Amino acid sequence: MTLDARTTYQRLVEKLEDKSRLAGVLGILHWDQEVMMPPGGAEARAKQMASLSGVLHEKATDPQLGALLDQLLQEKPGPFTPVEQCNIREAKRDYDLDTRVPKTLVQEMTEFASRGQQIWIQARKENRFADFAPILKKLLDLKKQWAACVYPDLAPYDANIDVFERGVTMAQITPIFDRLKSELIPLIRALRDQNPHPASSLLEGEFPVSRQEELARQISRDMGFSFDQGRMDVSVHPFCGGGHPTDVRITTRYRPDDFIESLYAVIHETGHALYEQGRPPDGRDLPASETLSMGIHESQSLFWERMIAQSRPFCAHYLPLFQATFNGNLKNATADDLYRAVNLCQPSLIRVEADEVTYPLHIILRYELEKGLFDGSIEVEDLPELWNRKMDAYLGIRPPDDARGVLQDIHWSGGSFGYFPSYTLGAMYACQFYQAMVRDLPDVETQIATGELAPIKAWLNEKIHSQGKLFSPQELVTQVTGQPLNPDIFLQYIKEKYSALYHLQRGAGHHG
Amino acid sequence: MTLDARTTYQRLVEKLEDKSRLAGVLGILHWDQEVMMPPGGAEARAKQMASLSGVLHEKATDPQLGALLDQLLQEKPGPFTPVEQCNIREAKRDYDLDTRVPKTLVQEMTEFASRGQQIWIQARKENRFADFAPILKKLLDLKKQWAACVYPDLAPYDANIDVFERGVTMAQITPIFDRLKSELIPLIRALRDQNPHPASSLLEGEFPVSRQEELARQISRDMGFSFDQGRMDVSVHPFCGGGHPTDVRITTRYRPDDFIESLYAVIHETGHALYEQGRPPDGRDLPASETLSMGIHESQSLFWERMIAQSRPFCAHYLPLFQATFNGNLKNATADDLYRAVNLCQPSLIRVEADEVTYPLHIILRYELEKGLFDGSIEVEDLPELWNRKMDAYLGIRPPDDARGVLQDIHWSGGSFGYFPSYTLGAMYACQFYQAMVRDLPDVETQIATGELAPIKAWLNEKIHSQGKLFSPQELVTQVTGQPLNPDIFLQYIKEKYSALYHLQRGAGHHG
Repeated sequence: MTLDARTTYQRLVEKLEDKSRLAGVLGILHWDQEVMMPPGGAEARAKQMASLSGVLHEKATDPQLGALLDQLLQEKPGPFTPVEQCNIREAKRDYDLDTRVPKTLVQEMTEFASRGQQIWIQARKENRFADFAPILKKLLDLKKQWAACVYPDLAPYDANIDVFERGVTMAQITPIFDRLKSELIPLIRALRDQNPHPASSLLEGEFPVSRQEELARQISRDMGFSFDQGRMDVSVHPFCGGGHPTDVRITTRYRPDDFIESLYAVIHETGHALYEQGRPPDGRDLPASETLSMGIHESQSLFWERMIAQSRPFCAHYLPLFQATFNGNLKNATADDLYRAVNLCQPSLIRVEADEVTYPLHIILRYELEKGLFDGSIEVEDLPELWNRKMDAYLGIRPPDDARGVLQDIHWSGGSFGYFPSYTLGAMYACQFYQAMVRDLPDVETQIATGELAPIKAWLNEKIHSQGKLFSPQELVTQVTGQPLNPDIFLQYIKEKYSALYHLQRGAGHHG
Repeated sequence: MTLDARTTYQRLVEKLEDKSRLAGVLGILHWDQEVMMPPGGAEARAKQMASLSGVLHEKATDPQLGALLDQLLQEKPGPFTPVEQCNIREAKRDYDLDTRVPKTLVQEMTEFASRGQQIWIQARKENRFADFAPILKKLLDLKKQWAACVYPDLAPYDANIDVFERGVTMAQITPIFDRLKSELIPLIRALRDQNPHPASSLLEGEFPVSRQEELARQISRDMGFSFDQGRMDVSVHPFCGGGHPTDVRITTRYRPDDFIESLYAVIHETGHALYEQGRPPDGRDLPASETLSMGIHESQSLFWERMIAQSRPFCAHYLPLFQATFNGNLKNATADDLYRAVNLCQPSLIRVEADEVTYPLHIILRYELEKGLFDGSIEVEDLPELWNRKMDAYLGIRPPDDARGVLQDIHWSGGSFGYFPSYTLGAMYACQFYQAMVRDLPDVETQIATGELAPIKAWLNEKIHSQGKLFSPQELVTQVTGQPLNPDIFLQYIKEKYSALYHLQRGAGHHG
């Protein structure tokens, strides 16, 4: 007896909701582990998470789920709304990803990813790439095998990219990244040679942690973060996590001698959090309501961190609050001083500390290495030297050791290849979204200067957050901005902003 | 092909560990809900917990688990150690409890318990017992049906008691409680009529919450709580929870005008926590390592709260710390003043606020009502009047309304009948354990007076915590104290202590 389409769909919904709820539980466990768990609980927690992951894997590969999907995919789309079609499509994608991989390969990936992270921590500490090389080779090999299972028609590196930024391939990325390189490398050189550099000494001082926290909460609230459906805490590395759009948890860390680092981390994580809190209100335990991709997620954090919080109107509005919060400090600073101080361009060794001009080159370097590792043109052994040579060529600095070079990122140690491009795709999306927003809301920069941020959140909610997974990243960008991803928008923004900040070409930029 | 006994046992272990780990996850979710979760997350959290409970129920009733148990129970005990035998026995008990009940009854119990709590909250708020009566009848009926399924040979109330204090029946409890009644009622009357009452005004004042917290952590640490394997936080009602013996989480609440309430709640919860942290170090995800029963658990919290922290040597040691922590307050108090102030006997309406002398009568009242409800001699409609009459007879006070009478406890609203006796069994166990400890460690009261609490924890660890579920509560008490539960020990302790405190019978008590 076959069920009618509606009943079949309802059964699918129940299974997907169950899966989503258990994934939410895993999210809370992860947050707890980073923020609350006493150190002695680590071993038991790892086992608890493994048990729950096992349950989730069983649910994800349940043959009954596959049968329901097969039946629904035979239906003409007639009876289903676009959201329902999206749920079916996404569930099928997830099911295929989960079932096309043999269990032994899944186990090997889990095992070596976990072992890889242990080995990487030690190798980075001791600055010994040779210790890390064998496991990196193994992880690469596993991810090539994995790609052959899940997307046999794609190049293996494209298959890995697709997990993080679906539909995006090397064929699209390479020309974009080449264009960024050709423009950014000379720009960075020109900025470096410019004298005098803008001063950041006004940001030095002592900033009591309790006041930093108060300020962070205030600005997060101004951005529209709902503390009724979220929390803010402290962890070693800032992140945005939680278990549900009604329970979104961001973290930061505080340094008493620097309030900018922590505050901008909060703004960044609040950008991620607003995306989660802004997900469609219906069917929140179903895939159509989920956030779209890594790149789009990053576009939301960078939108707020860079396009908004590093803008002159934002600096103008918040400078008095900074001054009031940290009495003595920043007393004689002007809005322009602050704007310049939070927009320094300075080539540096570490990706996560990079500014918006140099950041893309850190990513392009990694992209080129990953691409070579997957197509066989680069050997693992050659990575340290290639890394250092590229750092020199792109940013004019050479890492003094591998800990500050090829060993700096966690990604490869867990087998996450193809993740890095999302960061720079996100930065470019953010810029393109911002340009579109200014077209839609011509007064928005005046509003920022008066602290009115609600229209920005409302625009992002409507244009991006509430769209869930209905469209691909490419479709969404086109729909929101009127054109596909266009690196010229990002390049023009960077060039105009930094030419003006650094007085590069008088007349080309415009002063605030 | 049948597996050999060792392989079969190993399969059982894997299934039990998996179950235990998921139960630990549920523990963390519960803690998070009470301590961390933003209010807006409540609905999603309820669904997440329901999904996880569903998984746990599937694992608990897995026919493969039943088959493994059947096979192992056919083995002669020969190949198994006592701990392994205990794991098999306990797993069988749990499996029977979970599988003997038809699924429809399980669903009804879950549904009505949840609805019952909603209705009870409202009924208590509006002081309307009549609104609560129908659901209470339904819950009683379900629990009678449940008892007929799981323990058809037991009286239904005995079956319900067994869940909380295994092996204990009305036949044992009734004579013990009658004896307590016959001694405590006249004692309480005599204490009430005594003049002057000891003063508690020295405990009044203002006590900054941050200092209370510091003090609470200090004393919890002195007792031996490991903050490396646990946490202390704030919640509406104090509790001890967490996810594992290596991740034990206690909570309290602070009132700025009273530090004793919060501090003694911390001591109470630390007593529970030490039991969890003291569980056998091996096989911690298996039933043999679990805490034994509600009554024994309560004996551990009350041991610290009453036998230790309400003792004169404890007051003598900690008074200077209290004085130093809260500057002005307690300045002129002596150790005797403090000892008297934390040991007032005062009949009151609310069980959770009762002192150690009147508390048993709150329990006996509930026990007698539950017993009558189960054997049919009491009707739900008659509960409020019976409650009030018994309060008058036992404690000499009559509740002015049902909110402060029959509606005060949460237990019945969730269908937890047979739970109440554990509290007073626990108090009597605690007293009997204490007497045994003093025999084993003759210097212990001198050590308490110098703040040396480690020998106490070590004694409890060895005698009780490390025994897990190897013995029944009755066996454990006999093994540790040399005799079965004997209410005379408790009565003698109470009579001697309070006669002295209240100068009842000069010569009978002894002054500190």
